[in-house]
Amino acid sequence: MPEFPLPPGSTIGILGGGQLGRMLALAAARLGFDTLILSPEPDGIAGRVATHNIVAPYDDRDALEAVAQMASLVTFEFENVPAQVVQTLTGLGVEVAPGALALATAQDRVVEKTFLNECGVPTVAFAAVDDLASLAEAIDRIGAPSLLKTRREGYDGKGQTWVESHADAAAAWERIGRAPAILEAPADFTRELSVIAARSRSGDVVAYPVGENHHQDGILRRTRAPADLSKAAREQAETIAARILTRLDYVGVMGVELFELKDGRLVVNEFAPRVHNSGHWTLDGCEVDQFEQHIRAVAGWPLGPVTPLARVEMENLIGDEIHTWPRLAAELEARLWHYGKAEARPGRKMGHVNRLWPLKD
Amino acid sequence: MPEFPLPPGSTIGILGGGQLGRMLALAAARLGFDTLILSPEPDGIAGRVATHNIVAPYDDRDALEAVAQMASLVTFEFENVPAQVVQTLTGLGVEVAPGALALATAQDRVVEKTFLNECGVPTVAFAAVDDLASLAEAIDRIGAPSLLKTRREGYDGKGQTWVESHADAAAAWERIGRAPAILEAPADFTRELSVIAARSRSGDVVAYPVGENHHQDGILRRTRAPADLSKAAREQAETIAARILTRLDYVGVMGVELFELKDGRLVVNEFAPRVHNSGHWTLDGCEVDQFEQHIRAVAGWPLGPVTPLARVEMENLIGDEIHTWPRLAAELEARLWHYGKAEARPGRKMGHVNRLWPLKD
Repeated sequence: MPEFPLPPGSTIGILGGGQLGRMLALAAARLGFDTLILSPEPDGIAGRVATHNIVAPYDDRDALEAVAQMASLVTFEFENVPAQVVQTLTGLGVEVAPGALALATAQDRVVEKTFLNECGVPTVAFAAVDDLASLAEAIDRIGAPSLLKTRREGYDGKGQTWVESHADAAAAWERIGRAPAILEAPADFTRELSVIAARSRSGDVVAYPVGENHHQDGILRRTRAPADLSKAAREQAETIAARILTRLDYVGVMGVELFELKDGRLVVNEFAPRVHNSGHWTLDGCEVDQFEQHIRAVAGWPLGPVTPLARVEMENLIGDEIHTWPRLAAELEARLWHYGKAEARPGRKMGHVNRLWPLKD
Repeated sequence: MPEFPLPPGSTIGILGGGQLGRMLALAAARLGFDTLILSPEPDGIAGRVATHNIVAPYDDRDALEAVAQMASLVTFEFENVPAQVVQTLTGLGVEVAPGALALATAQDRVVEKTFLNECGVPTVAFAAVDDLASLAEAIDRIGAPSLLKTRREGYDGKGQTWVESHADAAAAWERIGRAPAILEAPADFTRELSVIAARSRSGDVVAYPVGENHHQDGILRRTRAPADLSKAAREQAETIAARILTRLDYVGVMGVELFELKDGRLVVNEFAPRVHNSGHWTLDGCEVDQFEQHIRAVAGWPLGPVTPLARVEMENLIGDEIHTWPRLAAELEARLWHYGKAEARPGRKMGHVNRLWPLKD
């Protein structure tokens, strides 16, 4: 166990070499930390701003030993860190945050929703699907059309398909590759919201103002924050986040995706045990952004304020859209974040802009 | 000449490995640039957040060739870059910004003040001193007590001494090591102010709100911004900055130190052709801080807004004061910047805090 609060000059290890790792490394640098990136990607964009960069598969024993040698603690930018990697690091005496429980819970949609319901957090109706027989039973219980998703992996709309009816069940089962799955009732929602929350090592929880999210082709396009929300809904979102983080004995920042139903109730879609795309608005809209907040939490520092300084619309720059950077650089109210990725592949998150307006009173 | 606006993914070279270089590198990373630090310091704090790090003397020919190979353009974090280094880089086809004229002017106090007066910017009365005879003449003209400073080098109050009277002249001349010098009339000022301004490659000039500076033992302790200032004084400060930057055909951010005299007039003390300690408040007080502004300017991007989001008091953490970081980390309104320096030597700038309050109407 390292000394907490972790002193500046210590090295924080980050698993993952993408934009979230990059922005975590930049935030850590502000607070005086050195950083170490472990990523299999040779020219990863996070390693380009880190003090140390190890290029190796996440489960490479030598690489993990090198990480353990250098880093006082390890965190990550993605939720699919293999449990074995966390075990290896822990076995080498390294503190990993967030911990194994949060990872295991978030990595399996059935475990995740079961956990949520158990701690009193509402979700859509769901059922585990292991084969055609259990899929038929699930359709009986949940109804159709409904959503069939693989229990593991899958993001930005990948690994899921609609089941139109009992007649469609076998084809849908093929479409998701006959993998262990979950059937979910479609949420009759008016808006998608998210709350970015953080929990410190001493158990304090803070939540940023709720953001309103707009997706396109399964990818987040836009977040507006603070969202126009009733006091009741805001409190409900904060209570949900606090309950999840506390029950998981969580340390760090978490992104919780919510559906706002027609009757005003909020249900949780899923949570990500890491900094979250829908929290990028905090980079220019808050005194302490989600990346610094995460570093503060895992480093055992007190949490920073979550009060907004401005109203923000965050827009993702996906694929070719990054080529508009000269126009965006000239737009006075647009704060550009360019991730420095070499190749603008379709669907790839290449950057984002935050557009700022004064807060409403 | 590189392509302007310089595309993200390009490498920006920075001469100097201290906190200003570190914060420039972090700002460049936000915009998608790679960075290269050249510094003689083996464990420099800027190199720890840069993509590439070359440890060598600034005038090392091989090092400069490596810089020229990798970097599309070069900038610096300190004003005493040897003219020879700029010549070598320019000869190797590298764009250097700000340019040789600004450096040469800022490096010599007599040249600097002569330039300022020539472009209609007021300074205190001054005279060049090359020997005891010219010092005696200077005292006749300027009066005493007055300030004797070396023409070159010297910062944070070093390389300067008071000349009390003609009788003290010889001793004062010894105290500054008989170096080429300048004698300056003491400014009868009520406040020290500074204005951080930027000029783009297309000649646009912007100036951040004026800051009010408080020094102690010759070192900046505190900057408050925006300073409480009459409209006339504000306009005067902006005009002065615009005149200096335009006349030098300057590209980048400059810090201009001003004295406010009892009658309300502003005179320029000196300017620094680089980002400036008294502009650190912009890191948390403005949408675009002085470091991003500098990167924008040298990269041929349009300048960003300079409107403040908050009132800020910036306080330097000098020497041992950095050890108060756990308390500062817990202070809700204090935004901490820890430079990650290993050794807290007396007088060394180790970090700073920005304390934020809502803007006055």
